[in-house]
Amino acid sequence: MDLPTYQDMLDAHERIKPHINRTPVLQSAYLNELAGAELFFKCENFQEPGAFKVRGATNAVFGLSEEQAAKGVATHSSGNHASCLSYAAMRRGIPCNVVMPHTAPQAKKDTVRRYGGKITECEPSTTSREATFAKVQEETGGDFVHPYNDPRVIAGQGTCSKEFVEQMEEIGGEALDMMVAPIGGGGMISGTCLTLSTLAPEIKIIAAEPEQADDAYRSFKAGHIIADDAPETIADGLKVPLKDRTWHFVSNHVSDIMTASEEEIIDAMKITWKYLRIVMEPSCAVPLAVILKNKDAFAGKRVGVIVTGGNVDLDKLPWMAR
Amino acid sequence: MDLPTYQDMLDAHERIKPHINRTPVLQSAYLNELAGAELFFKCENFQEPGAFKVRGATNAVFGLSEEQAAKGVATHSSGNHASCLSYAAMRRGIPCNVVMPHTAPQAKKDTVRRYGGKITECEPSTTSREATFAKVQEETGGDFVHPYNDPRVIAGQGTCSKEFVEQMEEIGGEALDMMVAPIGGGGMISGTCLTLSTLAPEIKIIAAEPEQADDAYRSFKAGHIIADDAPETIADGLKVPLKDRTWHFVSNHVSDIMTASEEEIIDAMKITWKYLRIVMEPSCAVPLAVILKNKDAFAGKRVGVIVTGGNVDLDKLPWMAR
Repeated sequence: MDLPTYQDMLDAHERIKPHINRTPVLQSAYLNELAGAELFFKCENFQEPGAFKVRGATNAVFGLSEEQAAKGVATHSSGNHASCLSYAAMRRGIPCNVVMPHTAPQAKKDTVRRYGGKITECEPSTTSREATFAKVQEETGGDFVHPYNDPRVIAGQGTCSKEFVEQMEEIGGEALDMMVAPIGGGGMISGTCLTLSTLAPEIKIIAAEPEQADDAYRSFKAGHIIADDAPETIADGLKVPLKDRTWHFVSNHVSDIMTASEEEIIDAMKITWKYLRIVMEPSCAVPLAVILKNKDAFAGKRVGVIVTGGNVDLDKLPWMAR
Repeated sequence: MDLPTYQDMLDAHERIKPHINRTPVLQSAYLNELAGAELFFKCENFQEPGAFKVRGATNAVFGLSEEQAAKGVATHSSGNHASCLSYAAMRRGIPCNVVMPHTAPQAKKDTVRRYGGKITECEPSTTSREATFAKVQEETGGDFVHPYNDPRVIAGQGTCSKEFVEQMEEIGGEALDMMVAPIGGGGMISGTCLTLSTLAPEIKIIAAEPEQADDAYRSFKAGHIIADDAPETIADGLKVPLKDRTWHFVSNHVSDIMTASEEEIIDAMKITWKYLRIVMEPSCAVPLAVILKNKDAFAGKRVGVIVTGGNVDLDKLPWMAR
C-alpha cells in the first residue's frame, strides 16, 4: 500500500496553489458563545467548484506526465469529486471521463458538463458502475483518480490543514487545540492526519459523522474497517466507507469519532447559515453538530472546523421539509 | 450642514478596527464569465451583526465623550442599523434605546434585544415614531445616531472602501475601475464617495437601486432630492430616501445610478448564493442585478461590489415564493 508522505503534501501545495483559492477563515462570536469554545471555520465551500475536493483532484491532474495527461483522467462519482476532477482537468486542458448513475441529480450532471467533463451513465448498482467504468477506462486510457483512496488525493486534501495552521499564525494568538472535520470515505480526515501529525501533532483530530452512516465510528471502535451498504443520511457526502489508505490514517492519528443525528445536523446547518452567513452542505454541519452535542469535550478550546463544501439545492433546503 | 472629511474617515478606521471584522474579498470565475467583467465582492455580511452598518454605528458609539456615553445612544430603525447600534453600544457597555413599530418582524426585535438594546414600540406611522422617539430621547438623554444622515456614520461606512482598496493591493494586479454599492438612504454610497474621491478618484462609483424604490435615481436625474412615501420592494434595506448629507455626496461624486426589477434582484440573489456561496440580503443583490443588466457598461472592467448585509429569514427565501 503506497501512502503519501509529508513531503508529498508539501509538493502538492506548490503544485496546486495557482489553481485553488486560499479560502478564508471565518468566526462568529455568537457561535462561540453557543459552543462555549472558540471556533474557526475554514471555508472550503469558497473553492471555485465549491468543495475541498478540488485540492486532491488538482494535485492528481497536475502531477500527471504529459503522456498520461493526453489520455486524461477518469472516475466514478456523483458528488463533488466528479465536478472537482472535471474542473481540474479543464484547467489543464485534458479529458475527464465520469461514470455516473443515470439517477444522479440533473444539477450534478450539469456541473460536470459545465467544466467539460464527459459523463457515461450506468445503472445505479455497483456491478453496473464497475463494468461501465472498466469499459470507459479501456476505451480512453484515462488515469483513474479515486475520490479518496488515492495517495495523490490524500496529499492534496492535506494542504487544507497546512493553510489553516498558517492562517492561524497570521491571525495571531495561540494555535488550535483541536481540528474537526466530517468523515465519509476519509479523504479530508486522512489529509488532515498526514499534515498535522508532522506539522502540529499537539492538535487533536476529531472526525464527525452522521449517526445514520456511522460506519467509520464503528470501524474505529472495532479496530477494523466496517462498510455499510447504502446508508441513508441528509449528509450525502458522507455515505461512503473507509478504504485501506484512509483507514491507515484514521486508525493511527484520529483522537475520536463523534456522531450526530439528522435533526442535530440540520439544526447546525441552519444556525451556521444564519450566524456565519455562508452557504454550505449538510455534510459540513456535522462538525458543529457534534461540537454542540459534546460541549464538555470542547469547552474553552480553540477549535478548527473544516467547512468542506457548498453545493446545495437552494430550492430544497432541509429545514423547509420539517 | 456638517460633512465628514477624509481625515474623519481615517480616524474612524483607527477607532473601529478593534471592534469590526476586516471582511474578506471573494471572487467567482463563473460569475465573472456571466458578467463579462472581473468582479470582487467585499463581504460585509460577515460582520458579526451581519451588516456594514456596524462600521458607522461603532464610530458614533466609540467617538462619544464619557459624559455622553453614560446616557447612551438612541435611534429609530427596524433594520440593520438598530441591531448594529445595539451591538456597538453593548461593546462599549452603554445603553441603546431603539424605537421600532410594533409591526416589525420578531426576528429583528430579538436581535436588538440579544445585543442588549431596549426597544420602545410605536405605531407604524411617521407621526407616532417621531413622537415616541422624542419622548424616549427626553427621558434618556441618549445621543441620536441617525441610520445614515450623520457625519460619524458616513465616515464609518467610508472605512469599507478604504479596506477594499488596501485588499486589492494585497491581492495584486491592477486597481478597481468601478465600485458598485446599493443605494437606499445613501449612507454606504456617501462613505464610498468620501473615501474614493480622495484615495482613488479614478474609480467610478455606481449606485444600484430597485426600480420599485428608485427615488435616488430620479433625484439624480432631476438634480434635487425626491422622496417617495413607502415604496414596496423585496430589497427592504433600500426603501428610505436620501437626506441632505447623503445627497451632497451622491450629487457630487456618483457617476451613475442604475436600477433593476424585483425579478432581476431575486435572480441575482439566487446566483450569488449558488456560485459565491454566501448568505446575503436581497438589497445586496441589486449591484449584481444592474451589472448583469448593463453588461456593456462593465465589460472587461475590474468591478468592486459591496455586499452590504446577510440578515435574511431562511424560512422565507424569495425564490421559494415564485
